[in-house]
Amino acid sequence: MSMTMTQKILADHAGLKEVSAGQLIEAKLDVVMANDITGPMALPIFKQMADHVFDKDKVVLVPDHFTPNKDMKSAENSKAIREFSREQCLTHYMEQGKCGVEHAILPEQGIVVAGECIIGADSHTCTYGALGAFSTGVGTTDIATGMATGELWFKVPSAIKFVLKGELQPYVSGKDVILHIIGRIGVDGALYKSMEFTGDGVASLTMDDRFTICNMAIEAGAKNGIFPVDEITREYMQKHSKKVYKEYQADEDAEYDEVIEIDLSKITPTVAFPHLPGNAHTMEEINESEKIYIDQVVIGSCTNGRLSDLRKAAQILKGKKVADTVRVMVIPATQKIFVECIREGLAEIFVEAGCAFNTPSCGPCMGGHMGVMAKGEKCVSTTNRNFVGRMGDTEALIYLASPEVAAASAIAGYIADPRKAGN
Amino acid sequence: MSMTMTQKILADHAGLKEVSAGQLIEAKLDVVMANDITGPMALPIFKQMADHVFDKDKVVLVPDHFTPNKDMKSAENSKAIREFSREQCLTHYMEQGKCGVEHAILPEQGIVVAGECIIGADSHTCTYGALGAFSTGVGTTDIATGMATGELWFKVPSAIKFVLKGELQPYVSGKDVILHIIGRIGVDGALYKSMEFTGDGVASLTMDDRFTICNMAIEAGAKNGIFPVDEITREYMQKHSKKVYKEYQADEDAEYDEVIEIDLSKITPTVAFPHLPGNAHTMEEINESEKIYIDQVVIGSCTNGRLSDLRKAAQILKGKKVADTVRVMVIPATQKIFVECIREGLAEIFVEAGCAFNTPSCGPCMGGHMGVMAKGEKCVSTTNRNFVGRMGDTEALIYLASPEVAAASAIAGYIADPRKAGN
Repeated sequence: MSMTMTQKILADHAGLKEVSAGQLIEAKLDVVMANDITGPMALPIFKQMADHVFDKDKVVLVPDHFTPNKDMKSAENSKAIREFSREQCLTHYMEQGKCGVEHAILPEQGIVVAGECIIGADSHTCTYGALGAFSTGVGTTDIATGMATGELWFKVPSAIKFVLKGELQPYVSGKDVILHIIGRIGVDGALYKSMEFTGDGVASLTMDDRFTICNMAIEAGAKNGIFPVDEITREYMQKHSKKVYKEYQADEDAEYDEVIEIDLSKITPTVAFPHLPGNAHTMEEINESEKIYIDQVVIGSCTNGRLSDLRKAAQILKGKKVADTVRVMVIPATQKIFVECIREGLAEIFVEAGCAFNTPSCGPCMGGHMGVMAKGEKCVSTTNRNFVGRMGDTEALIYLASPEVAAASAIAGYIADPRKAGN
Repeated sequence: MSMTMTQKILADHAGLKEVSAGQLIEAKLDVVMANDITGPMALPIFKQMADHVFDKDKVVLVPDHFTPNKDMKSAENSKAIREFSREQCLTHYMEQGKCGVEHAILPEQGIVVAGECIIGADSHTCTYGALGAFSTGVGTTDIATGMATGELWFKVPSAIKFVLKGELQPYVSGKDVILHIIGRIGVDGALYKSMEFTGDGVASLTMDDRFTICNMAIEAGAKNGIFPVDEITREYMQKHSKKVYKEYQADEDAEYDEVIEIDLSKITPTVAFPHLPGNAHTMEEINESEKIYIDQVVIGSCTNGRLSDLRKAAQILKGKKVADTVRVMVIPATQKIFVECIREGLAEIFVEAGCAFNTPSCGPCMGGHMGVMAKGEKCVSTTNRNFVGRMGDTEALIYLASPEVAAASAIAGYIADPRKAGN
């Protein structure tokens, strides 16, 4: 029987020769991750099940959402997972100020690699699919179970095959690709399915493009997003990880619910308007409409807080000034990216332009801190969700975009086309 | 009749030839400042009094306490003073991410100079006394009055004269001086009095030492702290400001409630233990006691977030690693200091050592954000208050210290002597 890439990984982790869509399986877990919101909720459940985690190298705790501690509640939450990590002698506890945002730090530190089965108590855990792993977000009961037993049940997903062709134009990147796709299939367009990316176009996408694309698979309702392993993936893993990885390929005759062709060369800068990631508008449509003036720009998060994202934004902001009416939050996703921004001169460009250059954190993405919005304010953000109230007041508006669009908009004071930004 | 330095400034601003301690006067104001906590409270009071501020160049609004907006309430507060600043066409509205912390940004931008009469709706407004100005913190009703009329009543303070002699030893700075003084006279030792600093020792103190010393005058209950103008002050003002300044000197026979001699060369690194800034312990006392293990270090704030502070901390942290058990928040006080830290390599030193390098803000000093503490946690902080609950939980403990002590403690994991830090 032929299988998709995801199905093959799940079959192997369930000790089965084959699995099919809809089948319930019990799979072994390679990494189990939780953060400062979900971790503290999972701990009491875990303690009902076990005294010790199943493997101290495979349970990863990352305080990143409301850190550096924004209030007493977040301080207590961080403390809870810190103390637990010490008690359990976890190898990977990612202290605030020393590591970074979960979905950036796990690949960066080589904790996740191709062929693995990974769960995280955070919906954007699907990010690691970029490396050719099966990776998905789960709830706190499931994460507690994973921490205790190293196994979890899954319903094997069916898949949509995205055949990528061509190459992206300048000032267009992974974020535009995924916003284009979600705009096309809708926020429930891949409900409980795998989004498997394939085709000749894959080779032209950087690792960071792939992370961004897989990061937002959940925004189309997908169980996971996944890329095949190629030379770019191998190079990334060799640089970051000492773990043994395994490459899986979908069978040529694997069954897909749908096959969608995407011509990368046709994608233009794309913005998801409030209040859904699927409410996609191309820059051509935006350029023809009335200007949308903004109050804030956020450049960062697990979606677009990587070095290449910040390079692209800095290139546009270099020598420019942020509009008087706009405040800009730049938030590198990890300390390593932060220090590299210093070394490459990006940090200086941002601050000289009038941006706040913040310590790694999820920041305002989930309404945490570092730029929460007041009533009626508008923000262009490189984050992944623009739901009602996501970044503060329920009457604040979030426009999701690439770092390129965000930087161009910061200068203009309204949603602007990076292709016209002039650097 | 002879007058103190403070009395002379007040007399001039009241249009009187002389004033004496206890006298009630109405003085003209050169600068009226409020922040994102006190500004929004003052606005409704202001609006009952006037339609326009008395002078758009002299009213300064600085969102710095809970910014970048840590939550919806702070977002609304920032929005209120932002919109007011635009309506009133204020020259000095200090947008978050573009300026910095009030008591660092006003001197840096040359908005406050010697001889002025300055009020701020923040208790540490006394900082500007370092420049030879009369500067004091007031409540929201008073600040609203100042904004509307440009005048305010004062009860003329009497004074304590601090005669400084000698020079500070290496690894000892302004923070140790003021902690030593408050330890000596107590937190009500200068209640409603001026702390006038004078003597040969003044010349050896940097401008930043003086800012730190005056910043904490309020922690001894003082109405204000003030330094005479000398070559160092003039040089600072010429570099930062285009305003005309006026130098005042106390009369030689001015009356003081008390004269206290301070031998700067005898001061050693000093730490104020919980829960009062006057609970001073010398490093010699600390070295002899059991180690005080800590969870967090904060280096920043209007007290010690200036470039020289960060240079001293970086010098100690260079090539070292923060203890595994400690998280460190470095928070430069302004964007200009932030970018200078990048250029000088300090930012890189901090991040390489394992510190969070945060965007300018008051941060956790007043329990705002960027390092709020959980129950039972201990922090060495370069801030100015260690009251119960100031930085989070009422059972968290704050030890006030210099940047040198803070940096040494970050590496050691317990309160440590910077003279033994080895860089």
